[in-house]
Formats: sequence, C-alpha cells, structure tokens
Amino acid sequence: MAKSNLYGRDLITTQEWSKEEIIQTLELAEEMQKKRFSPEFSNVLNNRSFFMFFYNPSVRTRQSFEVAATELGGHGLFLEPKTMRLKTATSAGETVEDAANVMARYACGLGIRILEDKIADYGEGDALIREYAKYSEIPIVSMAHDKFHPCQGLADAMGYRKHLGKDLKGKTILHAWGHGALGRSHCSVQESMLICSRLGMNVRVAHPKGYSLDPEVVKWTKKNCSDNGMEFAVTNDVEEGYEGAEIVYSRNWMSEKAYHGGEFHKAEEVEKALKFTDWICDEKKMKLTNNGFFSHPMPVDRGHEVTDEVASGKRSIIIDIAENRLHVQKAVMALTMAG
Amino acid sequence: MAKSNLYGRDLITTQEWSKEEIIQTLELAEEMQKKRFSPEFSNVLNNRSFFMFFYNPSVRTRQSFEVAATELGGHGLFLEPKTMRLKTATSAGETVEDAANVMARYACGLGIRILEDKIADYGEGDALIREYAKYSEIPIVSMAHDKFHPCQGLADAMGYRKHLGKDLKGKTILHAWGHGALGRSHCSVQESMLICSRLGMNVRVAHPKGYSLDPEVVKWTKKNCSDNGMEFAVTNDVEEGYEGAEIVYSRNWMSEKAYHGGEFHKAEEVEKALKFTDWICDEKKMKLTNNGFFSHPMPVDRGHEVTDEVASGKRSIIIDIAENRLHVQKAVMALTMAG
Amino acid sequence: MAKSNLYGRDLITTQEWSKEEIIQTLELAEEMQKKRFSPEFSNVLNNRSFFMFFYNPSVRTRQSFEVAATELGGHGLFLEPKTMRLKTATSAGETVEDAANVMARYACGLGIRILEDKIADYGEGDALIREYAKYSEIPIVSMAHDKFHPCQGLADAMGYRKHLGKDLKGKTILHAWGHGALGRSHCSVQESMLICSRLGMNVRVAHPKGYSLDPEVVKWTKKNCSDNGMEFAVTNDVEEGYEGAEIVYSRNWMSEKAYHGGEFHKAEEVEKALKFTDWICDEKKMKLTNNGFFSHPMPVDRGHEVTDEVASGKRSIIIDIAENRLHVQKAVMALTMAG
Repeated sequence: MAKSNLYGRDLITTQEWSKEEIIQTLELAEEMQKKRFSPEFSNVLNNRSFFMFFYNPSVRTRQSFEVAATELGGHGLFLEPKTMRLKTATSAGETVEDAANVMARYACGLGIRILEDKIADYGEGDALIREYAKYSEIPIVSMAHDKFHPCQGLADAMGYRKHLGKDLKGKTILHAWGHGALGRSHCSVQESMLICSRLGMNVRVAHPKGYSLDPEVVKWTKKNCSDNGMEFAVTNDVEEGYEGAEIVYSRNWMSEKAYHGGEFHKAEEVEKALKFTDWICDEKKMKLTNNGFFSHPMPVDRGHEVTDEVASGKRSIIIDIAENRLHVQKAVMALTMAG
Repeated sequence: MAKSNLYGRDLITTQEWSKEEIIQTLELAEEMQKKRFSPEFSNVLNNRSFFMFFYNPSVRTRQSFEVAATELGGHGLFLEPKTMRLKTATSAGETVEDAANVMARYACGLGIRILEDKIADYGEGDALIREYAKYSEIPIVSMAHDKFHPCQGLADAMGYRKHLGKDLKGKTILHAWGHGALGRSHCSVQESMLICSRLGMNVRVAHPKGYSLDPEVVKWTKKNCSDNGMEFAVTNDVEEGYEGAEIVYSRNWMSEKAYHGGEFHKAEEVEKALKFTDWICDEKKMKLTNNGFFSHPMPVDRGHEVTDEVASGKRSIIIDIAENRLHVQKAVMALTMAG
Repeated sequence: MAKSNLYGRDLITTQEWSKEEIIQTLELAEEMQKKRFSPEFSNVLNNRSFFMFFYNPSVRTRQSFEVAATELGGHGLFLEPKTMRLKTATSAGETVEDAANVMARYACGLGIRILEDKIADYGEGDALIREYAKYSEIPIVSMAHDKFHPCQGLADAMGYRKHLGKDLKGKTILHAWGHGALGRSHCSVQESMLICSRLGMNVRVAHPKGYSLDPEVVKWTKKNCSDNGMEFAVTNDVEEGYEGAEIVYSRNWMSEKAYHGGEFHKAEEVEKALKFTDWICDEKKMKLTNNGFFSHPMPVDRGHEVTDEVASGKRSIIIDIAENRLHVQKAVMALTMAG
C-alpha cells in the first residue's frame, strides 16, 4: 500500500477524524474482511513492529490488535508498562518524553489502553495518551481509555452498516445502561454515541439518575446529530428509548461518583449498580423496537446487562461486531502506519 | 499445503484419533524435521494466528508451540486467561461460549493448558477443554491438561520410532513411577500408555500402592493392547517391570488422593512421594532391561525420578523427544489448521 | 546472508571479541541503519526464533531485541524464567544443562538479562550466563547482566562514531557517577569503559569514594588504553574529569557494599547515593568539556544523574544511542545466528 492521507495520524477518538476519514476506514475494513488473507494486504506492515501498552489487561483487545498486526505482515508486541520505571510525582523513573522518543525509533505505531483503576480521576487516561502523542512521532492509537474507544466505535459502525445497510442516515440507536457487577468504563458507549451521530443516526441514551455521561461528549453528540438534522435524547426511563430503535446497545457503566478521594471505587459501584434490576435488556423491551438488533462491545455480563435469550438470539450481532475489531484495526494500522 | 483430512479436528487425546491419523501425523513430523526450514512448510500458516491459553505457565510448552507457529509462517499468541474476566459460579464475567465464539473469528486454532492447581478435582480441566471445543469452530489442541497430553504422546512415539525403528509392534515400554518433590500430573504418562498401546507395544506400569492412574485410561490401554495381541501389566514392585523393556519412562505422578476438599494438595503429595526413595530409575535397574532407552517428557527431576547417570547416559533419548515436540506440533497445526 | 566468521559465537562482553570483530559488527549495524527495511536484511532470520530470558524485566531491552528479530524476519519470544521450575540449592526443578540443551533444539539464539536483585552477589549473573553458554550449542547474548552489557557498549560506540567520526582514536570519554534513587548496575558503564578503550579512546572515571568498579574491569580497561597508547584515569573529584572530554557519560551505579548478607540492598544504596547531590551532570560542568556530547544508556533519571537542560540539550545524543541498540542487535544476531 502507498502512504495514505491518514499516514502518521493519531486515533484517540473518531470525533477528531473527519466523516470522510471515518468512511474511508470503514470501507477499507470491509474490503479487508472480504479479502482476509489476500496478498494485497498481507505485506502492508512487513517487518514492522506495533507496540501495545496495556496499563490494564485485556484478552480481547490484545488478541484483535496482535492478530491485526500479524495479518498485515507485522508484529504486535504486548507490553505491560508496570515493568517500566516511569517517573511519577513520587518516584524516580523515566519521563514519558524520553520513553515516547525512543519508541518512535523502534515502532511503526503505539497502542495504549488505560482504564478505571489505573487512574485517579476521569480524564487522566486521556491526558496520558495525549502526552504520549505530543512527544511521539509515530501514530498513537487508543486501545480503550477512560474517555474514548475509537476502534470499538469503528467496529460498531461496521456492524451497523452490514446489518442496516451502508447508509445509516435516519436510523436510531439506543444506548441503554445495564446493571451489573463490573463498574465499567464510559469509553465504549461514549465512542458509539459520537460515531453514530457523525454517521447520521438518531442517538438515544437511557440510564438511571446518577449515571450521566461526560457532558462534553453529550454536547458533541448533540451537535453531531443537529448537524445531520437528527435527534438526540436522554431519558431516565428504562423503557422509553426502546420504541422504534433499530439498534439497542445495552451496557453497564460507572456512576458519576465512581471517582473520589483520588481513586476508582469499584466495590461501591457494583453494590449501587446491582440494585437497578429493571435495567436489563430483555425480549419484552426488545419487542418495543423496530425489529432492533442487539449490540454490545463484549465481554457481555449476561444476566445483568442482557438476558441470555437476547444475547444469543437471532438479532444479536455481537460476534460480528467483535470480529470487526480485527478488520477496523487492520484498516487503521494500514492507513496510519504503512508506506 | 492443501487442506488435509484432519482439517478442523480437535486434538484432546490421541485416543480419539484413528491409528492411521496418528501415523500420518508422525510421518509428516518426521518429514518436517528433515526439511526444517524448507519453503515447503515455511508458509503453511502465513499471517495466521494460533492462540495459546496458559491457565498454568510452562516455558517448554510455550517455546515449542510458539516456535512451531513461527516455523510454519504464523504467529503464536501467549495468553494468560487470568487476565480474562470469565464467568464463574461466584463472579461476573464472560461465558466460555462467548469467548470461544469470538476467538474462532480471530485465530486458526486454540491451544489450552490447564493442570493440577488450576482445577478443584481431576477431570475438570478436560471438561473445560471440551466446553471450548463445543463452542469453537476452530481446532482445540490440548497443550497438557489433567487427563491427557497428546502432543507429548506424539513426541514420545516419534522418538521411539527413531530409536527402535518405525514398526513398534511387539516392543515393550515400562512406565515407572518416580518419587520426587513435584506432585506431577497424570497426563503425560496416561497419554504415553494410550499411544504406545495403539501403536502395538506391550505396555507396563509400575507404581507404589496408592498411585493408580485413571481407571478409564487403564481400561482403554488394556483394550488397545488386546486389540493388537499385546500384553498390558500393572505392578507395585519397583523392579518387576524393567525386565526386557526397550523403553523405560520414569516419571513422578500424584497419588489417588491428591484432590480432596475441592483442591489439589501439593505439599501432602510431595511429603508422601519423597518417602519412596527406592522408586528411582538407576543404572542397576536399567541393566535388567533389553538395553533399554530412557524416556521422560521433561523437565526431569534429577536425583528423584532418575539418576544423573541414566538421564545423561548414552541410552537417554530425552533431548531428542523434547525436540520432537516442535515437529509433531508443527505437523498437528499444519494438518488441522492449514488450507 | 551467508554464515559469517562470527557464526555460533556468544556475546557476553565485547572484551571477548577481537577489535576487528567489534568494527565488523559496528559497520554492519551502520549499514543496517541506512537500509532499515531493505530486502537485503529482512529475511536473514526467516522463520527463526530468538529466545529472550528476562530474569529482570525491561521494556527498552525487550523492545529493541524483539524488534530486531522482527526486522530480520524472525521472532523474539519474551520469556520470564520465574515460570520455569529450575533446580536450585533448595528446590527441585530442571538443571541449566537440560534447559539449555532443549532450547538449542528450538531457537537460533538465546538472550539473557539478569541484574541486581535476582542474584545474591556480584558475579553470579555472569556465572549463570556462562553456564548456559557451556551447555548450549546456540549463541548466548547478554541482554545486560551484573558485569557486562555488550549491546549497550556497541550502541554507545556506534553513537560516538556518528557524532565524533569513525576513528575514535585519541578522543576522551568521562564516565561520571551520578547520584540518584535507582541503585543501578555496573554493567553499562563497565562495558563502555571496555569498548571505548578497545577503540582507542582515553578513558576517565569519576566517582565518590566507595563507588569503585570491578577491579578486573578497571585492570582490563587500563591495559586496553595502554595497548593503544592512550590514558586511563580514575578520580574522586566531581569536576576533574570533565576538562577536555568529548563525551560525558553520567550514570548512577551501586556502591562497593551493595551486596552483603546474600542480597542486594537497594534501599541502603538509594539513601546513600542521594546524599551526593553535587554529582549531577549540569551545564556548568559540561562547559569544562571540549564541546562534549552527553551520553547515557537510558532510562535517564533526570534531576539526579543529569539536569533536564543537559539531557534535552543540543549536545545530548541519548535518543540516537537508544536507537542504535536496535541496529547493533540486528547486526549481532545476523552475524552470530544467520546462515
């Protein structure tokens, strides 16, 4: 592949890419899916190394990125920054500036994953990723952080294009909070809101009181919808958003008070979340939709976020979407790192 | 390579493959050893990813599988399921069904290793592997579990074919329990009993009272021997089985009472096993054999299972057999995953 | 590449390679840097596996070795020996002899990193590496151990050749002890002393009393300097060595008393080292040099070993040198393992 217009670009959220760039990425991903092991793409990153920094562990994300690098002819290195001696306010070590400068000499790109318990407050993961991006001459790709999860958003959109048709304009997605025992990050649902609104969908969010999402992301989503002449709505009613929806995305996320006193309080979050037993996506609610598909970034917390009946039902597209992670990540890597 | 008749097949124990399939695998492994880096085999899994799930760590098994994938042009991912949030009776997480379904979209095959202390009772590892196999459309390969170790069995057989000739019919192998400080799994010796009896050998097992192996495996071995007109014998005498043996396989394994109260009791096992100081394979006992070879799946616990004199002696074929792990695993991967 | 004269050689310290072999390696590394992804070098280790044994973790060293293997067409396996059951004085397990013998059947080479806290006394890491080398038929490469760090030394020399010209004869390097909170190994600075003295430089060492380096390394360095008609000097004065130096290499290292009672006492080392606040490389001292370059093996402990002003200044060549790790390691692997 020749260098693309996206060569060298960071991907921290799809909101920072133009709509044309998002479509270009999705179309390449769709082509890569069709021609999965074709020589056309199997040497794109030959002998190149992609670094994957997992502040938080993840089997799925690691698999999809490492396989993506492999299928492009390159190599993904699984790295745990806990073995780095990085400088902090209280301990001696290397600065991000030095670490990023050196990595840019070795790698074709750097993926970073940093979530909940590895930060002291919402927004710190995003700040750290942007610090790496500032000092690094190679593309930085978020592999999920506290605010955004761009590759998940692209995978979602690729799934909706497959099942609803390539023009998503006017289709409706509901993001329904799900109760559960995991105290999950805002990143996946926030990214979904952003990319779906960019691509012309009506965007709805339903959650109990106290579970608002990042006000800035809400503002951007509203603006995206309005730019496309579409609707944006937030409700605290467990059933309200289902009506007429083409996609239901049911997912647990942490409350507004998850961080306090300089840390993430998972146990409190779980205790609080488990009380909202109504907030489960089930067949009864799905019947209210416009023959809607069930979407989820996985892993699914069955029995809490969604019933088995829905998650394993005919309208569930979660496995397709999980597969898409591979294809969109290959496309992102090819576009930003190859040539 | 074109798709073989074994394409898509799981390998949980060689007992579930036909004798012809076992021979086919051994012959391909022997050819792969002869032409180790030949272009004939170096692109068989190009750009493909093989997932290696290590519930229990292992340096040797990881090396031999990851090198096997590399030599076939593919990539082995070393994964530790402890970083997965799998659903259990007591904690929220992903189901094996979901995990297996997604992995089948990314990988060409999945290896699983699960032993002693990662299970609550004998048989649970085997059950988990079969649950993955049920939901996964890609081949599942045991990389050693509580019951079986098919790749070790194939490596053993490849070693015996090299040193005793390709027709093993009528040759005699003794599996001699060895004392020691490791409380080892039954899997290697049980697999050896099964594959050697399939290939026409007389099979003997010697162990102190209280160290019986899985009755079902014993029954199958007896049947395999009988089908081939060969002899099967079990003794509690430390010297009895050596006479006339062509192969002595000396290895520690846990007692019948290793699991109780929902866990594996290693300390008890070690204390008990260390008392049987006679149960060591030494030159004196080896003199009783028919100029027998010394076999062991490694790592060897020298001084307990076997003396240095025997383990490093001229009739020791342990390094050859360890090397064979690479070749048989390449053959298994090529036959079940390529094309 | 055809087999080189260095095929099969271990690299434990550059002192054990001839000056011609060192120059040959540096010249190949320089060529590899110029033609980084050229087909000339991208298949040199095709389908081959390089094992990396990290007794101590290291992100930088792991990155540079794993990327080196990838760029040569091979694969680097990141292995942590803590998951091996190696035999020790007090516990059952595998011998180095057995482990090394088997690895030689799988891999094209073996890198080992073992430092401070993984040994009970200075010299034990070196002894362990030499034990692996004794039993292994594949090349052993030190990835930093208690005594030496040959790949860092080669990277340093490659950097000095770039910035001072290829003939280093008569140039002067100061190794200045730096205070700090890390209690670092002697290996990098000792390797630098050795390789710089081999290549014809004047070598100076400055440190507080109590921080002498290995007397044998000091003796070898003196002899190397004398063989080339150059000067070797040691001082306890913080400023003395700077005058006229072309390179200042400022680095913390542990005291002569770091090991006692069978272990490394990091906390004591840090407490003691932090008292020597004058021992920082700053602009004032750098003004005494002959427009000297600042060198450091990274990670840099900024504010202790060196000021930000110097470390990020125009005469700092630390990022170039870190990049060189990749090129010299590719050259070492190609020369000792390919063909």
